[in-house]
Amino acid sequence: MTITVAIDCMGGDHGPPVTVPAALQFVREHADVRVVLVGQAGAIRPMLGDAAVGRVSVRHASEVVAMDESPSLALRNKKDSSMRVAINLVKAGEADACVSAGNTGALMAISRFVLKMLPGIDRPAICAVLPTMTGHTHVLDLGANVDCSPEHLLQFGIMGASLVAAIEHRERPTVGILNIGEEEIKGNDVAKRAAELLADSGLNFVGNVEGDGVYKGDADVIVCDGFVGNVALKTSEGLAQLLATFLRQEFRRNLLTKLAAVVALPVLQRFKKRVDHRQYNGATLLGLKGIVVKSHGSADVLAFTRALQRAAEEAGSGVLARISERVARQQPLQETA
Amino acid sequence: MTITVAIDCMGGDHGPPVTVPAALQFVREHADVRVVLVGQAGAIRPMLGDAAVGRVSVRHASEVVAMDESPSLALRNKKDSSMRVAINLVKAGEADACVSAGNTGALMAISRFVLKMLPGIDRPAICAVLPTMTGHTHVLDLGANVDCSPEHLLQFGIMGASLVAAIEHRERPTVGILNIGEEEIKGNDVAKRAAELLADSGLNFVGNVEGDGVYKGDADVIVCDGFVGNVALKTSEGLAQLLATFLRQEFRRNLLTKLAAVVALPVLQRFKKRVDHRQYNGATLLGLKGIVVKSHGSADVLAFTRALQRAAEEAGSGVLARISERVARQQPLQETA
Repeated sequence: MTITVAIDCMGGDHGPPVTVPAALQFVREHADVRVVLVGQAGAIRPMLGDAAVGRVSVRHASEVVAMDESPSLALRNKKDSSMRVAINLVKAGEADACVSAGNTGALMAISRFVLKMLPGIDRPAICAVLPTMTGHTHVLDLGANVDCSPEHLLQFGIMGASLVAAIEHRERPTVGILNIGEEEIKGNDVAKRAAELLADSGLNFVGNVEGDGVYKGDADVIVCDGFVGNVALKTSEGLAQLLATFLRQEFRRNLLTKLAAVVALPVLQRFKKRVDHRQYNGATLLGLKGIVVKSHGSADVLAFTRALQRAAEEAGSGVLARISERVARQQPLQETA
Repeated sequence: MTITVAIDCMGGDHGPPVTVPAALQFVREHADVRVVLVGQAGAIRPMLGDAAVGRVSVRHASEVVAMDESPSLALRNKKDSSMRVAINLVKAGEADACVSAGNTGALMAISRFVLKMLPGIDRPAICAVLPTMTGHTHVLDLGANVDCSPEHLLQFGIMGASLVAAIEHRERPTVGILNIGEEEIKGNDVAKRAAELLADSGLNFVGNVEGDGVYKGDADVIVCDGFVGNVALKTSEGLAQLLATFLRQEFRRNLLTKLAAVVALPVLQRFKKRVDHRQYNGATLLGLKGIVVKSHGSADVLAFTRALQRAAEEAGSGVLARISERVARQQPLQETA
């Protein structure tokens, strides 16, 4: 089976200079993929050379959604944006997935408008992979929804578990809910009620996960509202940058420490590679009738390639059918409850 | 001026084996402090030796609040717990501050019951110091309140700014609100309204701070509700542990990497010291008519000493008077708004 990925080549902080080389590398590395490069043909074609002809096509789109543009205006006015045309290709069945490093809010709004939601899912959620002590975990939502009901969090749990089951071929991934452990309170009312729903859902629910449990690997899937998830994710990014900066500063302090850095370089490079956030680039917009992957706006070629791989994996895994089937099974359970 | 610190010696994961040596070290290092060691005298006295007689006293308390005990039961039933007696000493004016590594919920509940709130403050908030690229920042609330109104967040801003002004002698510390930056939404309604109140408050308000901005040093004081703050703090703890573990693993991989570790050891130790979370131990319960500092439950002697220093600093800074005065100034402003 050949997977076709539509790529919004104009999105992100860098546009074609990152997206096009990443697409070509992706095609070189995977014999069973095709890519449709969507965007300003005049900017894209000169970068192609003779590489990978046959599995690379270009679809011209005259407009570009700016990174700081209002999502509702982008949705209303930019019918021929590279982002919209890429999503249209998924809708039309010409692509199995699309990837964009563009404006997150616009990508959400346009995807939702064009593709629509899966039956039984109220809202899309942004789901990303984070490293843990024992492997990795899937966390959602990371910013699509700021105020979630307990039912939304249940849906996130179903979607996340379906995703892990489809991609990693594990039938009963563990699901936890992000919460706080202070004695008096044990979380807010939404989290408490959501925990009850999840416990009754038939999912492999493991209960509350505190902030530090995310990286300990306490669950394969961790659900939270988008405000909390976004803060947790970005706080992590900030802390990782802080620690990397401090480590670099210490190794550059004087001649002796610089010599130590030379000796330690292979070790430090292995460490760096292991915790390289680019490896984890590519967040899925779950809940839509189509696969849409959001790359970090500042992604470089390596990072953008990962997002393309993620999209192709999901397209090949049948995750959408699995979510639909799981939601359908859930409905009667909830109604009889 | 001599500062007297009442210490709940029984609290925390370790109790007297950590709290008593930390208290003695604290007294040795600071000529102008006294400590009252509160707890089971039979456990405390044998650890004292002849050290620091005169500035160290013991106050027997027959009960101990367990780490997993219900705060409301601890409040109702344990009138002679070490935690409660330590707080009583602050109330009675026999101590200028108290420190506990015990059950956070119980410490909150008992402090609030015994000491009462400062006029104009509705709820206490937990405020801690975190390192940043440019120094450090104060973040509150970190778990005392799971559902905050915009007015509560404004009060947190006033309290945090008053604390920084009192301790660091800076009249106009910057204040930010933790928020998310996704285009469509820009945060939830509470955060939006709180930002308006903070902008009108006369504080040096710098607007929204995203998760990564916490560690960049975007503001001297960052306010958030306790659910989000707690998740951000604990996620950071988890990530720091993950990175430390991975770094250690890479340096222990084989003989060559172990040799590299020996060469790099002084640098790694400097780095470790610089990011040592024990340096930042001691979170303040702000908003009470008395100074109460919460140590991490797992604190060791060094960490607990830091919490004692923090309590003494705050007691010597006049922070409570400053908060009261600032709140009083705020009231008319809000009423005319």
